[in-house]
Amino acid sequence: MPSLRTALRLTSLALLLSLPMRADEGMWTFDNLPMKAMKSTYGFEPTQAWLDHVRLSALRMSGGSASFVSADGLVLTNHHMGHDWIQKVSSQGEHDYLKHGFVAANRGKEIKIPGGVMFTLMEMENVTAQVEAAVKAGMNETQAAQAKQDALKRLVEEQTQRTGLVCEPVSLYRGGQTWIYRYKKHEDIRLVMAPEYDIAAFGKDWDNFSWPRHDLDFSLFRIYENGKPYRPKHFLKLAPKPVAYGDMTFTVGHPGLTSRLLTLAQMQAERDFSKPITLRYLDRQRKFLHQWALQGEAQTLEVSAQRMGIENSFKVQTGDLAGLKDAEAMAKVAQAESELRAKVNADPTLKALAGESWTRIEEALKTVNARTAEMIAVSRLGRVVTTVKRGGELSPFQRATQLSSLRAVREELGGTHPLVQDFFQGRSDEATLEALKGDLPETYQKRIQALSQEYREAQSVISEHGVRIAKARFAVYGTSTYPDATGTLRLSYGKVETYPANGTLMQPFTTFAGLYDRAAAWGPKIEEASWALPPRWVKRRDKLNLYTPYNFITTNDITGGNSGSPIVDRNGELIGLAFDGNIESLPGRYYFDGRVNRTLAVDLRAIVECLGKVYDAPHLVKELKGK
Amino acid sequence: MPSLRTALRLTSLALLLSLPMRADEGMWTFDNLPMKAMKSTYGFEPTQAWLDHVRLSALRMSGGSASFVSADGLVLTNHHMGHDWIQKVSSQGEHDYLKHGFVAANRGKEIKIPGGVMFTLMEMENVTAQVEAAVKAGMNETQAAQAKQDALKRLVEEQTQRTGLVCEPVSLYRGGQTWIYRYKKHEDIRLVMAPEYDIAAFGKDWDNFSWPRHDLDFSLFRIYENGKPYRPKHFLKLAPKPVAYGDMTFTVGHPGLTSRLLTLAQMQAERDFSKPITLRYLDRQRKFLHQWALQGEAQTLEVSAQRMGIENSFKVQTGDLAGLKDAEAMAKVAQAESELRAKVNADPTLKALAGESWTRIEEALKTVNARTAEMIAVSRLGRVVTTVKRGGELSPFQRATQLSSLRAVREELGGTHPLVQDFFQGRSDEATLEALKGDLPETYQKRIQALSQEYREAQSVISEHGVRIAKARFAVYGTSTYPDATGTLRLSYGKVETYPANGTLMQPFTTFAGLYDRAAAWGPKIEEASWALPPRWVKRRDKLNLYTPYNFITTNDITGGNSGSPIVDRNGELIGLAFDGNIESLPGRYYFDGRVNRTLAVDLRAIVECLGKVYDAPHLVKELKGK
Repeated sequence: MPSLRTALRLTSLALLLSLPMRADEGMWTFDNLPMKAMKSTYGFEPTQAWLDHVRLSALRMSGGSASFVSADGLVLTNHHMGHDWIQKVSSQGEHDYLKHGFVAANRGKEIKIPGGVMFTLMEMENVTAQVEAAVKAGMNETQAAQAKQDALKRLVEEQTQRTGLVCEPVSLYRGGQTWIYRYKKHEDIRLVMAPEYDIAAFGKDWDNFSWPRHDLDFSLFRIYENGKPYRPKHFLKLAPKPVAYGDMTFTVGHPGLTSRLLTLAQMQAERDFSKPITLRYLDRQRKFLHQWALQGEAQTLEVSAQRMGIENSFKVQTGDLAGLKDAEAMAKVAQAESELRAKVNADPTLKALAGESWTRIEEALKTVNARTAEMIAVSRLGRVVTTVKRGGELSPFQRATQLSSLRAVREELGGTHPLVQDFFQGRSDEATLEALKGDLPETYQKRIQALSQEYREAQSVISEHGVRIAKARFAVYGTSTYPDATGTLRLSYGKVETYPANGTLMQPFTTFAGLYDRAAAWGPKIEEASWALPPRWVKRRDKLNLYTPYNFITTNDITGGNSGSPIVDRNGELIGLAFDGNIESLPGRYYFDGRVNRTLAVDLRAIVECLGKVYDAPHLVKELKGK
Repeated sequence: MPSLRTALRLTSLALLLSLPMRADEGMWTFDNLPMKAMKSTYGFEPTQAWLDHVRLSALRMSGGSASFVSADGLVLTNHHMGHDWIQKVSSQGEHDYLKHGFVAANRGKEIKIPGGVMFTLMEMENVTAQVEAAVKAGMNETQAAQAKQDALKRLVEEQTQRTGLVCEPVSLYRGGQTWIYRYKKHEDIRLVMAPEYDIAAFGKDWDNFSWPRHDLDFSLFRIYENGKPYRPKHFLKLAPKPVAYGDMTFTVGHPGLTSRLLTLAQMQAERDFSKPITLRYLDRQRKFLHQWALQGEAQTLEVSAQRMGIENSFKVQTGDLAGLKDAEAMAKVAQAESELRAKVNADPTLKALAGESWTRIEEALKTVNARTAEMIAVSRLGRVVTTVKRGGELSPFQRATQLSSLRAVREELGGTHPLVQDFFQGRSDEATLEALKGDLPETYQKRIQALSQEYREAQSVISEHGVRIAKARFAVYGTSTYPDATGTLRLSYGKVETYPANGTLMQPFTTFAGLYDRAAAWGPKIEEASWALPPRWVKRRDKLNLYTPYNFITTNDITGGNSGSPIVDRNGELIGLAFDGNIESLPGRYYFDGRVNRTLAVDLRAIVECLGKVYDAPHLVKELKGK
């Protein structure tokens, strides 16, 4: 604790002094990869065959990612991605597969998921030119937009008929490019194996977004076709050489949404207006739910799912806000913006297109910012109105929730705010709730109409100039940068790497020993058993090699939707499974800070180890190993 | 990662919603303990016998703390407190006890530490009234101060003669009370056992102030008297019931220095002026040393100890600054200050004494703040001058260091600053260095004289009004609060408790499994072997009960100087050994934030386990267990 230690060994500061903020940044489309950067940093660039192989091994599922991992259509994804499907085929007692886990002893025991679908991205076609060609001389802007939309629709229809694939239009670079992505749809998906929820989500909601981590967040499904296991042309083989500190890593998956191309003023508006207000409402909600749960066990159960959701949102939004408040990071965002503006202003055409756009957005934001609190309040009140008007008696919990929403709005805007006065009309919250069964006060209706009108006009300015900036950016940088995430297939590259946090350097791997350490440290009952182990993991402990690498971290640039993405090595072989980001990755919505933003992954060695020694599933180990 | 998890179990937010900032605050003197607070929070208050017992079992050593842990004078402290002593009795090769550890096979093998001393606090006497009585009517302030000083000196001399103990005057509450503390001095101290540095400081400087932690930071000495093991009347027995999550804990030790009674303006001055400047200099130094080390192995060794020190300071100062920048915490400091000011202004006598003092300090700080950068520069330049004037040829490293200091001052003040111009006289750094062998430029000498004069005058205003505020505070709160730490014996109370960090809740304990997890995660070579295990710990791994609690955290309020403090339970029995604080404890210099400030301790179970199974020292286990 005091500075009394004489040095025997010296810890290296090289890492912290040298790490650039943007190393390994980017969620790249498969047609446009930063070959030079990869080559110069890692001495490696993937071939077209390599790229085709990992793309055709990848799968899209609702809200996330997966991949083929055997010749017989075995599919690997996260447990939290398979969660709803596992729940769907579960029932009470021993068939509660979330609680007890599930292993199909043979293929006949694999359980079909009702309604389950997955997609493979077979082909991508850039149709920008074809779509733009629909614009004829003399068309005004509305006509031009309509013509392009019609052309794209026709292309999608034509391709769907021709290829028999699911064809989806994709807009990249905020309008800079238009593509059609063609998918093969898989409709017979069966559950093969799932660990217990308690080990898949060890640490529960507390550990969400944290590192070091000890989550066995995987599940196995199998895709069938015509009643037989589907045999994909491409699947990821288990890497014979496991992953090590410093190794290059790739994720292949479907990041959902980033906002990195917002202007600085837009980010500041989120930082100063929408985020703090949203967080205050969320905070009130979590406290309300907390109080509700304190009433007893039944009430605790009643709100448990909702609390999980609110807590996750609260963590995400808090992380977003922290990112927006990071002065150093935001200075880099500002610098990138000035650079682009200078380039735009240096080119007469671009200047005419977007030279004024940043200022126009900034001005429009003044109106938006001044109205954000009211707009959020209107939306909250709108939900109360909808709930009441749906008719029927409100349950005690529903009633308490609506009253809590009314109170929140009053607190947030203040009792003397005209909108509050128009809505409540001097009545108590209870009386207001009762009155909502009838018509809304006319003054309130007029007020929100005026408000929405003003708000919508400002937003349309922002939207128009956002597109102009996007076009200008694309004209300047083209495909030397990557487009914001849109839920479509992307490749990111990086490496296994530590980061500074919590006063030290974070360990690059965890092991099963760390899992048992934390379970022992907390004990099975503390903090509502968040770090309790399933019985099978207690019984089988001494059978395991405790030092098997379990989770690991990489610099890959991912975001929500990448859950379930395979992590592959230079050989395109499977080494890990992405399942989360660290808490420092949350600002990744706005910018990538390579010094601390980390992808969290399950090490394939851990999956193999426990399939054999905990789940008595040597047949799955064999299948993964391609034997 | 996405918000898709449905809740099966619900994690409790009660903790975060309910934790007060000031719970368990205080480094209390033994004559004045918060009995009511302890009783109401924990249902326990120590008896006088309990207090005497733990006090007389405690030991003071240079810069830290220790305790008697057997009837035969066995002493337990941190490895990092014993570090210099262990080094002193080490030699090259197998007798490098820092590298290989040391176990005395029997008492005859225990090694005497040249110059080693420790102290037991036998008696404390409040002499405030006797000292104040020396002030006679008609004395002016200077005469009064002198009279009190003389009276105190006489009392110390008289008591030293009478008791044969080491008597030391102690000023508490910044002058509110004067005590004489009487110590028994122990001068024959022998090394009994020390683990290897690599396990005592596992994680090296990286892990300093971090949690979760895996440090075996203990060492054992024995106090001898007349050539025989000393038999203390009081020593701490090993608790038969080990410590558990939530248990009440006490530390008994010698916290060195806190600044919690500074005014808000003083803290702000540190935040805005002295700390940032100091940090920039430290940052330059670490970069300079880093560059120096890059030259080769010899250069790396040459600067290794210095780098350790700089890195520790950098971490401490960064933590201090983060604390001062914490808006929420500082608002509470401001609130406490307003409360005190209101109380002072409500009392005519106190108002006359200190009503203006906060404003006077604030005004004087304007001068100080405006001169801080120059004063720091003058002190840096002063060190260069001293080094050069010491004569003899500078080594290449010394020369580079001095040049780096000169450059730092130029960068910090700017080349056109009058002080820089006076000092450098337009010469290069090299020429300036050469010229320093002669006299300093007269203009520079005059400038620093004027500067020092101005600075000293402002400081004396701050000092005078600081004492007035201290007196007023003592008049208002008396001993219902605790005095700032002064290196004298204090008791703190608290409990084993988690805290929120890193996106989750921190585990209250670690185990040996966590140690091996991290060693395996990093591997023996990465990051300059910071998490490498000594050979003995690799060989004996499978002999250990891996789930033995190893380190743990408590809410006890401690600071530098508490290193080596025993942690005892309600029975006054030994459960742990304090060795560090978490990174969130660093602002503890200014205020205590009970929500996140944690003491880090070695669990006695870990010490017993490894003495038996790693160090083949069953005789020490027996002795600790009182058998």
